[in-house]
Amino acid sequence: MEEPKLTEISQLGEFGLIERQTAGLKNVNESTILGVGDDCAIMRYKDTDLLVSTDLLLEGVHFDLTYVPLKHLGYKAVVVNLSDIYAMNGTPRQITVSLGISKRFAVEHIDALYDGIRLACEVYGVDLVGGDTTASRQGLVISITAIGDAPAEMVARRDGAKDTDLICVSGDLGAAYMGLQLLEREKVASAGQKDFQPDFSGKEYLVERQLKPEARRDVIEALRNAGIKPTSMMDISDGLSSELLHICKSSHTGCRIYEDRIPIDYQTAVMAEELGMNLVTAALNGGEDYELLFTVPLHEHEKVEKIPGIKVIGHITKEDLGCAMITRDGNEIPLKAQGFNHMA
Amino acid sequence: MEEPKLTEISQLGEFGLIERQTAGLKNVNESTILGVGDDCAIMRYKDTDLLVSTDLLLEGVHFDLTYVPLKHLGYKAVVVNLSDIYAMNGTPRQITVSLGISKRFAVEHIDALYDGIRLACEVYGVDLVGGDTTASRQGLVISITAIGDAPAEMVARRDGAKDTDLICVSGDLGAAYMGLQLLEREKVASAGQKDFQPDFSGKEYLVERQLKPEARRDVIEALRNAGIKPTSMMDISDGLSSELLHICKSSHTGCRIYEDRIPIDYQTAVMAEELGMNLVTAALNGGEDYELLFTVPLHEHEKVEKIPGIKVIGHITKEDLGCAMITRDGNEIPLKAQGFNHMA
Repeated sequence: MEEPKLTEISQLGEFGLIERQTAGLKNVNESTILGVGDDCAIMRYKDTDLLVSTDLLLEGVHFDLTYVPLKHLGYKAVVVNLSDIYAMNGTPRQITVSLGISKRFAVEHIDALYDGIRLACEVYGVDLVGGDTTASRQGLVISITAIGDAPAEMVARRDGAKDTDLICVSGDLGAAYMGLQLLEREKVASAGQKDFQPDFSGKEYLVERQLKPEARRDVIEALRNAGIKPTSMMDISDGLSSELLHICKSSHTGCRIYEDRIPIDYQTAVMAEELGMNLVTAALNGGEDYELLFTVPLHEHEKVEKIPGIKVIGHITKEDLGCAMITRDGNEIPLKAQGFNHMA
Repeated sequence: MEEPKLTEISQLGEFGLIERQTAGLKNVNESTILGVGDDCAIMRYKDTDLLVSTDLLLEGVHFDLTYVPLKHLGYKAVVVNLSDIYAMNGTPRQITVSLGISKRFAVEHIDALYDGIRLACEVYGVDLVGGDTTASRQGLVISITAIGDAPAEMVARRDGAKDTDLICVSGDLGAAYMGLQLLEREKVASAGQKDFQPDFSGKEYLVERQLKPEARRDVIEALRNAGIKPTSMMDISDGLSSELLHICKSSHTGCRIYEDRIPIDYQTAVMAEELGMNLVTAALNGGEDYELLFTVPLHEHEKVEKIPGIKVIGHITKEDLGCAMITRDGNEIPLKAQGFNHMA
């Protein structure tokens, strides 16, 4: 592999690399409704849209088995894919699971991993329908593809936000990131110590958010019951800032969100204080919360406010106003995509 | 990860491990028609069956970049998945591509890989609709999922073979395996030598079969044009023996195939001679040919014999007769699954 003038991948980053490889792709099949660039691809069969989402998880990059139990890992690996299906306003139906397994793992380890996978399938009513299992030279490789469906008219993409739409978020933000900080801290503290007992007291919520996140099926159901179809929707995997910028870019809009409206749990705040980190930065850029970010028309204000656990954090604007957050003291600061970037 | 009484994965092998993890799985979604255990999973939407197949390819396990050009690798990674869709008598429509990329790779390397991926999409009329791109700590990871469709009544599974059905094979067998042997030999010969020129003269076909296999769309089309629906079908990725045993086990039948009917190319025979290998063993167990193995009712004999490149190699029997090959000298030897097993 000796070639002149090579370009480091970090110069492009993940999104840049994907854009480069998929630029100018033309779809030739009638069933292909939407390709690269949203939470899921969309295929249409009669009046049903099929949704497909896939994730690749690599040991040492996406998870650290020194503190992630294999059962939790299996559960989370499924949930993050289902979250993408819900984020299109769909219902997940099937998953395929491909595993690369190094010699370090015994059958019982894979049993534990699959315990988590099967539990997630059970909890979310999803069928495990296929996959591929192979040896790997180093570490554990997990590739999961989720398939779901939705009535064609119900699918929520990221490109449908309109000026004056309300920006809504489910649950609270930044907790999964703080959970990761906590687990990393205890890992460092435990290094070389036998029978080390990590101290998670008063921070159980943070650890749970990191190790065993849930996909917000309940929010999708609540929206349906309320008769609300989001104009755009994404799940928050890379951080609120990054996802909101995606929605605004795809929808050709701007946005304003309000610092004092961003939902943050008490434990997240305490942990940020302990670590001397900026709390709002953590909530904006933390990632892995798997909450839903969506927009609804202004006239749905009353209906959406009534749904428990949903918070209106701002509104969509015309594109030329840009994307910004109004701080508590009334200043406007531009939103930046500082989310996770494994390629940087 | 300290646990008592751990079981090595090699004790179960790939199929054993999959069986253990998927035993007793119950599907809960109406759209799930067929789960784990065939070339593809099947989902039904109205009168259309959706087919999903997935493969995980790991550097150092499935490919060796010292002799596999990245463009060929991209092409092959797609083709092997499409082959699974054709093997259900379907038409591939979409793929998703997930990549794990280590620091060793530059943007131009990924360009080359995608050149091959896009070429395969173009040749087979398939849309690239999504994926995931991430850093890897070591080596290249490729996970591809293919989605296809077929009218529900046309889908060919592996469990439909019936007593007296004819066993058919497309193309010729063992060439991809011999190509691999050749590439490995030249790799050893080139070790430490600068400007080494590998010698592939007279063996170009073997190298091509290994590096740039094709999926047999033409065979599927020919069968449709002839009005033949195979009673069972698989693609030959692990070797004829292994695949035929799968069909017979799933269909609760036995089989007889004839040594002198197994299609083998001249170059394959020459190479086996050179390496002192048993030619028929290579053709039975070689793997990676991506030819189609299928069964048709006896009364289709004339029609199927007329299709160029299809060979009838034997017939299905009642289960209690077992699975065997009749050698040139009239002996019966039992078929064994000695195909590739990365987990062994």
